[in-house]
Amino acid sequence: MTLETLKDIVKEASGLMLTDTFEISQKAGLVNIVTSSDIAVQDFLKQRLAEALPGSGFLCEEEDAHDLKHDYVWVIDPIDGTANYSRGIDQCAISVGLKHGNAIEMGVVYLPRTDEMFYAERGHGAWRNGKQIHVSDRPFADCVMCTALPLYRKQYTDLCSAVIVDFFKQGNDIRRFGAAAPELCYLAMGRIELFFEYCLSPWDFAGASIIVEEAGGCLSNTVGEPLNYTRQSGVLAANSRENLARLQSIVSAHIQNPTF
Amino acid sequence: MTLETLKDIVKEASGLMLTDTFEISQKAGLVNIVTSSDIAVQDFLKQRLAEALPGSGFLCEEEDAHDLKHDYVWVIDPIDGTANYSRGIDQCAISVGLKHGNAIEMGVVYLPRTDEMFYAERGHGAWRNGKQIHVSDRPFADCVMCTALPLYRKQYTDLCSAVIVDFFKQGNDIRRFGAAAPELCYLAMGRIELFFEYCLSPWDFAGASIIVEEAGGCLSNTVGEPLNYTRQSGVLAANSRENLARLQSIVSAHIQNPTF
Repeated sequence: MTLETLKDIVKEASGLMLTDTFEISQKAGLVNIVTSSDIAVQDFLKQRLAEALPGSGFLCEEEDAHDLKHDYVWVIDPIDGTANYSRGIDQCAISVGLKHGNAIEMGVVYLPRTDEMFYAERGHGAWRNGKQIHVSDRPFADCVMCTALPLYRKQYTDLCSAVIVDFFKQGNDIRRFGAAAPELCYLAMGRIELFFEYCLSPWDFAGASIIVEEAGGCLSNTVGEPLNYTRQSGVLAANSRENLARLQSIVSAHIQNPTF
Repeated sequence: MTLETLKDIVKEASGLMLTDTFEISQKAGLVNIVTSSDIAVQDFLKQRLAEALPGSGFLCEEEDAHDLKHDYVWVIDPIDGTANYSRGIDQCAISVGLKHGNAIEMGVVYLPRTDEMFYAERGHGAWRNGKQIHVSDRPFADCVMCTALPLYRKQYTDLCSAVIVDFFKQGNDIRRFGAAAPELCYLAMGRIELFFEYCLSPWDFAGASIIVEEAGGCLSNTVGEPLNYTRQSGVLAANSRENLARLQSIVSAHIQNPTF
């Protein structure tokens, strides 16, 4: 199983996401179409990746049963940023990570609407459309952070807001594009420097995490430990160890007993 | 002076923004290049628009002297979203509005990196790349709001954060793409529904405001009054009068004596 094969399969799957128009409709039907796209991409990826790597398991967003007992597990978000997808916003992506033991060995994040393919394999650097990418070297005061308020757990809004405000007073600015995998890839290529979300699922960050690492960045959970790719987790990422530690100290100041 | 002529001039000016690469450099030189792009676009627009509409005045971001005494005034942001521009992020735009008396009569917002041209003329609808656009009809609970913390006035961070959190608990979600004119155009085409920033300059919102209005949306300042296109202002926008009023009531609850 090569990274090239994975890229080809993801690119082919993205054909199921592309529509002819960016227009938005409010009809309930559109939500169904969006859901159908998620399912269609996931089914396609599962079939093709199972063929490409016999014996591998799957941990996917649109599925209840997860095959975590396998040595190799595909961690898949068929469409990261489904709300953006349904609203005609560019930042949505297919995200695939290949987990081996506790580590992600290769990852691909593909944004079909901007035709941006991000990919990495452990030890071989991170790439975007054929060009090697690196995190920026901006110091904390110049950092832009991608972050979000907790859409599916609004009871944690005030905690997350306190972190965001505290960062904003020390760093530069905030962005929220509405999809974690693209935002982590933006970090990997130096468009932004920091990332914080209080609760994500493995498929939101698995594929992008190795892209960040191979681009020279680093990630942790809310308390500074390595990410676990089998359960929900807070995710911090930064362009340097120093900036990650500083972001983590801000998070710890406001979230003493993290749920995730 | 026709809208077609304005579109052609803006499109031509955008050639001065396009670069060959999305790579980011941390060198101070890049900042100079970005500033040069702003100036180059503005100089080009001023020359061509003065020729196209003799006797018109100018209110531009990169300029100290403003010609507000003229009947017709071009309100120009040569690059709205300069930080995004310098970081290789798509959401940056040339924004031009033609002010006549207290109203904007036509507006163009062009994003060269995504090749999206938004435009409107009073009474003739709002358009994106040849297709008429409309705001969404989503109710408040389903609304996504584009907003920002106040980058150039961080002393108002807590006020703005309170507004954002209050909205988030009543509505759906937040986005921050990092440039006001593109975000207002997203509202006009139904990608998002609400917009709030505590302090913008006329060139940030003049061009996009008529696009929002002609798409069926509405705007006001922080206290619900019509926008003034000659001075700094808070800006609220919504896909309906009802949602604008509800957003305005949230803003008023947290900002009793608005500075802008």
